[in-house]
Amino acid sequence: MNIPRRVNIVEVGPRDGLQNEKTVLTPVQRADLAMRLAGCGLRRIEAGSFVAEKMVPQMAGGGEVFARLKNNGAARFSALVPNMRGLEDALRAGVGEVAVFAAASETFSQKNINCSIAESVQRFAQVARAAHANGVAVRGYVSCIAGCPYEGGVKTAAVADLTARLVDIGCGEVSLGDTIGVGTVPVVQKVVAAAAKMVDASQLAVHFHDTHGQALVNIRAALEAGVATVDSAVAGLGGCPFAPGAAGNAATEDVVYMLRGMDVATGVDLQPLVDTAWHVSRLLKRAPASRTARAMAALTHAGTAAT
Amino acid sequence: MNIPRRVNIVEVGPRDGLQNEKTVLTPVQRADLAMRLAGCGLRRIEAGSFVAEKMVPQMAGGGEVFARLKNNGAARFSALVPNMRGLEDALRAGVGEVAVFAAASETFSQKNINCSIAESVQRFAQVARAAHANGVAVRGYVSCIAGCPYEGGVKTAAVADLTARLVDIGCGEVSLGDTIGVGTVPVVQKVVAAAAKMVDASQLAVHFHDTHGQALVNIRAALEAGVATVDSAVAGLGGCPFAPGAAGNAATEDVVYMLRGMDVATGVDLQPLVDTAWHVSRLLKRAPASRTARAMAALTHAGTAAT
Repeated sequence: MNIPRRVNIVEVGPRDGLQNEKTVLTPVQRADLAMRLAGCGLRRIEAGSFVAEKMVPQMAGGGEVFARLKNNGAARFSALVPNMRGLEDALRAGVGEVAVFAAASETFSQKNINCSIAESVQRFAQVARAAHANGVAVRGYVSCIAGCPYEGGVKTAAVADLTARLVDIGCGEVSLGDTIGVGTVPVVQKVVAAAAKMVDASQLAVHFHDTHGQALVNIRAALEAGVATVDSAVAGLGGCPFAPGAAGNAATEDVVYMLRGMDVATGVDLQPLVDTAWHVSRLLKRAPASRTARAMAALTHAGTAAT
Repeated sequence: MNIPRRVNIVEVGPRDGLQNEKTVLTPVQRADLAMRLAGCGLRRIEAGSFVAEKMVPQMAGGGEVFARLKNNGAARFSALVPNMRGLEDALRAGVGEVAVFAAASETFSQKNINCSIAESVQRFAQVARAAHANGVAVRGYVSCIAGCPYEGGVKTAAVADLTARLVDIGCGEVSLGDTIGVGTVPVVQKVVAAAAKMVDASQLAVHFHDTHGQALVNIRAALEAGVATVDSAVAGLGGCPFAPGAAGNAATEDVVYMLRGMDVATGVDLQPLVDTAWHVSRLLKRAPASRTARAMAALTHAGTAAT
């Protein structure tokens, strides 16, 4: 298998994670979280978004978050922007990379961003042009790659086409997201293979939610298919582990544990990452969803644990 | 990849799962659980053990459990036995298959079963002879295949040697167990390859705990290496999901979800299995550790769920 020897982790906890948590953290807490994650060796961190605060109160005060991220050393902080207005806010905040969020399902696109897939691509083309004019890189998300909560199945060709269109309009990277966490290995293999025919595999990332526990096995399948960039969220943020149907992101600690075992370099230090997972989980008043964070905390406290 | 088209799941929830839970279920509840699992299509179920009740109160009343499993249709129920006395109790209870539990680590063997590895093999040889004389099949466990809580690393050769010895004394199948859930894909590949040089791969099973979230990805690696039998526990029994360091078994629902997606036959129906996971979890007064059980419950209750 062609597992890459180095994998880039895009830490999405402060954005995709926290925006799906019930507890709202302050901009100061979110900036502090992003800086702690940078301190763990994470080099790409999606630190917030510039969306209507009424719609996503969890992400309010994005400007304040990014103002606190100056002098960030080696880490690159990015923000999700839904439109030109969001981009303008992001530019004012000095954001160096923005992400746009499209869907491979028409119904999801309409329900989530109030326009058709084609309209969203047009909108994002304008965002990308303006971002590039300001020296800001653009990342694209393709959501619903393995299924849509409204339509059910999603055509692989729709995922691949949208991926190509996002690259065409200037996205340097496209993250393929199993938004509802229904995909299994063969779906991941098929979707990645189809996308990699349209764009270079080095331009692809994968983004899994652990709804059915498949996040890690799907990540490994994506790496075998030539992907070298993986989205994940510290503490598996994005779904409360105590709630039925909790569907957090792939937990960065579990991803790093797997990759370290596979001798794949990530540049991330596991122990401070686990500490950070517990830190943010305490703010959210719960335990991390990540198995590794729980296991390593038990080891720290108990010396060792046999089961 | 040589993923088998059919995988045998050995459901260990009623034994390895429940023996590690704080809440003690009654023999009636445990027998009922085993029968529900059989009703889901599981064909091999480790339903209890015949060990000192003082040591493992969770497994007390094994005779009563097995008395209630008569007329079990297509399912085969097995019991763990530590020694001749346990076997005699199991034979009296009419158990059709017994399992013995050895360790690849000397210290773990001493601490867990109070004898050296060599002594345990001698003891189990006597058990196997007596079992066979009574027409009862014998399964062997090799624990600590990826690490020992006392010694740390465990030699792959020690795992392979013990596997061969267990087959030599009459174990028709040997289950390779990552008892403390520390292994990653390369360790699994190495250990399975070494064991498969000593015995036929069809005689091997794998048994993972999800301590670091690696259970599913490790199972897939084992299947790629030629293994076609997988141990798992309904609801991920064996570790409370609310406790730091919880280290339950691979959850049968998550395994079945993965294998179904890979078009690998298991004979197991997912929906009644999820119902059974919630049933036993309610008895234990908590939510299932399995992601699939939680996700499917949310879908059942909410119609559909977007994240």
